[in-house]
Amino acid sequence: MNEPTFSHLVENKPGLVDISEKKATFRRAVAKARMSAPSELIKRLGQGIPLNQKGPVFETAIIAGTMAVKNTSSLIPLCHNIALSSIKFEIEIKEERIYIQCEVKTLAPTGVEMEALTGVSIAALTIYDMCKSFSSDIVIKTIYLQEKTGGKHDIKYRS
Amino acid sequence: MNEPTFSHLVENKPGLVDISEKKATFRRAVAKARMSAPSELIKRLGQGIPLNQKGPVFETAIIAGTMAVKNTSSLIPLCHNIALSSIKFEIEIKEERIYIQCEVKTLAPTGVEMEALTGVSIAALTIYDMCKSFSSDIVIKTIYLQEKTGGKHDIKYRS
Amino acid sequence: MNEPTFSHLVENKPGLVDISEKKATFRRAVAKARMSAPSELIKRLGQGIPLNQKGPVFETAIIAGTMAVKNTSSLIPLCHNIALSSIKFEIEIKEERIYIQCEVKTLAPTGVEMEALTGVSIAALTIYDMCKSFSSDIVIKTIYLQEKTGGKHDIKYRS
Amino acid sequence: MNEPTFSHLVENKPGLVDISEKKATFRRAVAKARMSAPSELIKRLGQGIPLNQKGPVFETAIIAGTMAVKNTSSLIPLCHNIALSSIKFEIEIKEERIYIQCEVKTLAPTGVEMEALTGVSIAALTIYDMCKSFSSDIVIKTIYLQEKTGGKHDIKYRS
Amino acid sequence: MNEPTFSHLVENKPGLVDISEKKATFRRAVAKARMSAPSELIKRLGQGIPLNQKGPVFETAIIAGTMAVKNTSSLIPLCHNIALSSIKFEIEIKEERIYIQCEVKTLAPTGVEMEALTGVSIAALTIYDMCKSFSSDIVIKTIYLQEKTGGKHDIKYRS
Amino acid sequence: MNEPTFSHLVENKPGLVDISEKKATFRRAVAKARMSAPSELIKRLGQGIPLNQKGPVFETAIIAGTMAVKNTSSLIPLCHNIALSSIKFEIEIKEERIYIQCEVKTLAPTGVEMEALTGVSIAALTIYDMCKSFSSDIVIKTIYLQEKTGGKHDIKYRS
Repeated sequence: MNEPTFSHLVENKPGLVDISEKKATFRRAVAKARMSAPSELIKRLGQGIPLNQKGPVFETAIIAGTMAVKNTSSLIPLCHNIALSSIKFEIEIKEERIYIQCEVKTLAPTGVEMEALTGVSIAALTIYDMCKSFSSDIVIKTIYLQEKTGGKHDIKYRS
Repeated sequence: MNEPTFSHLVENKPGLVDISEKKATFRRAVAKARMSAPSELIKRLGQGIPLNQKGPVFETAIIAGTMAVKNTSSLIPLCHNIALSSIKFEIEIKEERIYIQCEVKTLAPTGVEMEALTGVSIAALTIYDMCKSFSSDIVIKTIYLQEKTGGKHDIKYRS
Repeated sequence: MNEPTFSHLVENKPGLVDISEKKATFRRAVAKARMSAPSELIKRLGQGIPLNQKGPVFETAIIAGTMAVKNTSSLIPLCHNIALSSIKFEIEIKEERIYIQCEVKTLAPTGVEMEALTGVSIAALTIYDMCKSFSSDIVIKTIYLQEKTGGKHDIKYRS
Repeated sequence: MNEPTFSHLVENKPGLVDISEKKATFRRAVAKARMSAPSELIKRLGQGIPLNQKGPVFETAIIAGTMAVKNTSSLIPLCHNIALSSIKFEIEIKEERIYIQCEVKTLAPTGVEMEALTGVSIAALTIYDMCKSFSSDIVIKTIYLQEKTGGKHDIKYRS
Repeated sequence: MNEPTFSHLVENKPGLVDISEKKATFRRAVAKARMSAPSELIKRLGQGIPLNQKGPVFETAIIAGTMAVKNTSSLIPLCHNIALSSIKFEIEIKEERIYIQCEVKTLAPTGVEMEALTGVSIAALTIYDMCKSFSSDIVIKTIYLQEKTGGKHDIKYRS
Repeated sequence: MNEPTFSHLVENKPGLVDISEKKATFRRAVAKARMSAPSELIKRLGQGIPLNQKGPVFETAIIAGTMAVKNTSSLIPLCHNIALSSIKFEIEIKEERIYIQCEVKTLAPTGVEMEALTGVSIAALTIYDMCKSFSSDIVIKTIYLQEKTGGKHDIKYRS
């Protein structure tokens, strides 16, 4: 059995993994986040009260998340800068929780899981920021990679 | 009783809260994150195997988190850009979990909770990135504001 | 009569104007932009067809404009980096034109006209980007400073 | 006849257009801007008085515009980040107006009109910034896409 | 005698020095760089051959350096983000060498030596970039802090 | 013999070199920097006193350098933005000097010498920043390109 390795650490010095021998393939990653908030806030976000639509909070989160996805390699030190071909967000309220999903696609020699994870993280923080004057009892309950395809090892989690 | 409000939404249009009437005061915020990972990975991070020290992974996360804190207003759309006076991180392993704490201080007319929350989020994502070749079974279990002082309303949560 | 001067050019070399002797005062600037577009596009934006609301296009423009305002000193070479206390946008449709207004406030030793002008410019470009698949016959007709107060010389234009 | 669509809006949620099925082709876009300013300012810019050369103002605008072109995907939320192969600016004075042109080229699966438009916008704002101590009666009169080739639909406007 | 300390390293973990107890004072720093290049290149830069003026290369370096100064806290991990009040560059050719000087001023609780050093570094790299098609035999020979005033300890070096 | 040219200057106006006719090839560049510092500081860095490991200072410099490499096209005005496939740093102490090396690789139509040079420069500045509370008698003694391969003209210097 192969021993798992820390590919970013060569002789204990951080370095960008060399991908010059890898071929560009279509790759896709999906990350998810879940947030909890007081019932009253969830209700207003969901029903659009006092907002006449739930739009602005979630739209703003999607815009912030999208821009963060494109900016991932400036945020995560050992992440490659690559051109992305698609970024999609879904935000929904279900059973008193806010669910955020971000799907990123690329044609590149490296994957986009960090991009998808960064996207849901910044979208969640933006929702927090836009609602914190209403309640500070908002918590990001989980952030994880749900799916990753197109690289050497596909990964598929349960949601 | 005052009804809570969404201060970022004036007539449903997003806008930066006007802080020109507010005085600069000393403010401080502390945010926390917790991550889970397979025992083997946690053990190696904690004992420094095969790393001879746990240093690099956590150091890199602290550097990335620190830079993200300073960059918060470029990431969160309605967050003010302010000068910060202190940024401190603590990362530790306890009972098979990774705990990240970020404390931010400022002398400004607005608080720094988004800075602290952004800091722990990017630090957590960096740990994920540096360990994902070892295991992709890593999950950010929670991100929350632990404490906030110096503004109109102090907030103090249990850890 | 004082001869007007190019304060950014000392002996023909560009340099940031030295504001270390100037006192921080409350300053405010308002910039405006006007865009033209085909009637059909204007109508849909205004009535929310096929969008059920005009929301997303203009919301996205406001978010992009707000983030650009905070980023002005990274875009305009000789513009000082200062903390801003308020950023507000208004976008409306009137007589088949799109009108964008951005108001910026600060407590600083220098004005914020470049911030307000950058805000309306990027908001206008974002509207262009979001509508260009519908029509490429969209033109930014004018961008100008409408008002500036709090510095040595107040400026007040007609709209 | 096909009904025009807003490709950035899927079910009213903003998202990056998916270009993963599109092939990389050579693409080129040219944008233009025109500015008005008081005769005295235009004359000095054109004749190099009191500047011994018109150089610095326009050179600075070109540098700022070039850097903004490379930064377009960080400014315009739904714009793809792509590698660019050429950026050229022309700035000239004609009939008391300042004309700015920016041409951008790429080999990519998406066009570069937003890059060219962002380039002329930031160049124009930089000229404004560098001359505003001389006169604040400077107005950006128009910003538009002049030409776009290499995509599904070529566009050619009159200048 | 006080033992010198590494103020950025608390228990071996990097962290931003806490300046919340320090008062804002006027501070100034001057950094210098020196570059060598082949005689022919130096001559052309100095006499403006084939450039009709040495302008563009050095102007571009000054613009790049100025923007980098404002961006220092995004480049140097443990550097505070502060508002700057003045940035000035001098570039000259003397005895076949290129000399770059950058002076930065602020009113802040921390100094600006990193800003001045970053300014001359990026200006020097920009000169390299603009001349490298002419010769790649260009070397940055030295970068150092010449002077620093306004903090606890003033520093004054010989040039 | 061909006369050397300044490819960035067309009719004395700065512009990005047009690389649309050039083919993507594997390219590699190596840059080096050397720093001097007081013996006592060098000794502590090398032996890990009072740091129990030399880790943090150099690790932080590597992280900052790596992020700067990816950000080169935002710092150097006429540098193309390209995807990078590898970034590696080496930092060592030899004969009382600190030596920094950065190797960058890409598959692109243009070289990466500016990326490698920017990397060692920011890494050196970061070391300066982290040690300046210990001594301000630290000088960057040289920054140069050591090697460049994969383009039209390979370059190989002596170290």
